[in-house]
Amino acid sequence: MFGGDVMEIPSFEDVKAAHARIKPYIHRTPVLTSSYFNELSGAELFFKCENFQKAGAFKVRGACNAVFGLSDEMAAKGVATHSSGNHALSLSYAAGRRGIPVTVVMPRTAPAAKKAAVRGYGGRIVECEPSTSSREAVFAEVVAETGAEFVHPYNDPRVIAGQGTCSLELTEQVEGLDSVIAPIGGGGMVSGTCLTLSSIAPQMKIYAAEPKNADDAYRSFKAGRIIADDAPQTVADGLKVPLKDLTWHFVSRYVSDIFTATEDEIVDAMKLTWERMKIVIEPSCAVPLAVILKNKDVFAGQRVGVIITGGNVDLDRLPWLAR
Amino acid sequence: MFGGDVMEIPSFEDVKAAHARIKPYIHRTPVLTSSYFNELSGAELFFKCENFQKAGAFKVRGACNAVFGLSDEMAAKGVATHSSGNHALSLSYAAGRRGIPVTVVMPRTAPAAKKAAVRGYGGRIVECEPSTSSREAVFAEVVAETGAEFVHPYNDPRVIAGQGTCSLELTEQVEGLDSVIAPIGGGGMVSGTCLTLSSIAPQMKIYAAEPKNADDAYRSFKAGRIIADDAPQTVADGLKVPLKDLTWHFVSRYVSDIFTATEDEIVDAMKLTWERMKIVIEPSCAVPLAVILKNKDVFAGQRVGVIITGGNVDLDRLPWLAR
Repeated sequence: MFGGDVMEIPSFEDVKAAHARIKPYIHRTPVLTSSYFNELSGAELFFKCENFQKAGAFKVRGACNAVFGLSDEMAAKGVATHSSGNHALSLSYAAGRRGIPVTVVMPRTAPAAKKAAVRGYGGRIVECEPSTSSREAVFAEVVAETGAEFVHPYNDPRVIAGQGTCSLELTEQVEGLDSVIAPIGGGGMVSGTCLTLSSIAPQMKIYAAEPKNADDAYRSFKAGRIIADDAPQTVADGLKVPLKDLTWHFVSRYVSDIFTATEDEIVDAMKLTWERMKIVIEPSCAVPLAVILKNKDVFAGQRVGVIITGGNVDLDRLPWLAR
Repeated sequence: MFGGDVMEIPSFEDVKAAHARIKPYIHRTPVLTSSYFNELSGAELFFKCENFQKAGAFKVRGACNAVFGLSDEMAAKGVATHSSGNHALSLSYAAGRRGIPVTVVMPRTAPAAKKAAVRGYGGRIVECEPSTSSREAVFAEVVAETGAEFVHPYNDPRVIAGQGTCSLELTEQVEGLDSVIAPIGGGGMVSGTCLTLSSIAPQMKIYAAEPKNADDAYRSFKAGRIIADDAPQTVADGLKVPLKDLTWHFVSRYVSDIFTATEDEIVDAMKLTWERMKIVIEPSCAVPLAVILKNKDVFAGQRVGVIITGGNVDLDRLPWLAR
């Protein structure tokens, strides 16, 4: 259905269908506020806490939508993906809930903790070398062997429609938002946000936040075409991947602006969030807060939704202890 | 009013009055659940998250009740305490909200971060040597100079009535609890819990959890009289202090049992909570979870309220990194 070469753009109807489909398998995550951060920023911030989501991140929304939207016949062959991050966990969780096989291709160099987590959710891991060519070759083999349905981490209309349910909930939970800001890597969450808000709240501004060390989306946005970097290095390891055609479709049309933050700014914002809000968040989701704190003129006086994308952190390797 | 030698036992009416008094200054903290911990324990756990409380801990309930219950005349002279922990922060916060002076006597060896936090809330710090005799001498001077009202961290009926508002909220938020468990140090939270539950839900069991390394409450409970230790060492630094007459009154009458956990069990439970629930909790409030996981026969099948007492942690010195 979605495997062809013609780009299939999901609609807001798909978001509503996704929400109904995934509801039994996800949390309606809470929205937290912090008088400390409101004072510090001069804005009114509403943190949508997807770190409390099943499998620890928003990615489970898109993964569940893809998995539970499959026909029984397709589902029987299972699903597959290549990812060493939250998408691998989320797809394993979703497949486990449906009771179908899931294969994840991961570089053999991926952290043991990540592999253990995928296996903990019932995922089968097939290792590849840590290169794009090896990953693609191994992944093609897996699909040929199993007939599994490929669920891309973000460049997939089912995944984008699933991620769109997050801002749908946010607008139900908080009235009168002026804008929403989310981190951007491949652009799945930002695209889902664009899809939902352009339909139900087109007056709301959508901002994206990116590490300066992996600012391909920022440069793409300014250049008007996709620019992909080779292996950028940033502490926000969920945000290293480039935009693809489907996410570019949304980002280029509906995003108001993209801002960047340095590694130090990201780690500072992450630590400050742990200290003041008492929640465990990943480096990736500290990027929006870092951006708000350094661009106060843009956000002051606004009611801003901030998507906290996930909370899967290696507690033995905290970035502020490595500085 | 409360300064005499006759022990004044607070009543449930005092808890209700406290709740009305402090409501504008505290959060009604959320109750979180975790399917992971439910599965692990065999019980249904309801975590009352006082780590999200103002000033980062439940202590602000008792401190606000003491501060806002003062007559204008008494309040004008300010309040004072000796503490290097959450009570110091909480009393500073409460006094700041009322706009009255607050003095905290702290050992000069207390961590700079703690002192900065007290000052951040507007507290004045007077340093003493790290000994009981110095602390008492310096504190007496402060009170003589200022006429400030002493607010003890736990052995004070106003403070206990304030802490009792926590389990009052919990019973409003969760129906049909079989038991409640809280960490025990000086016994302020446990006494407040006893005060409230013995009045409105006397069938509910009250358990206390204590570090094995500072098990004076456990030994007191078994011996039937207060046993105080000299300077016990535990990672759960909020739980080193001994019971006093007023808290012993409640603990000896209403607590069903006290369980202990080792340092490793506490740190494991703390880290697991961060990993799976994505919340920042202090070592002290990991003790109840550690106790539940090692005494599954006691808690299995029950609906258990677990008081998460606070989230003030030095993120540069995490206990699992020191092992």
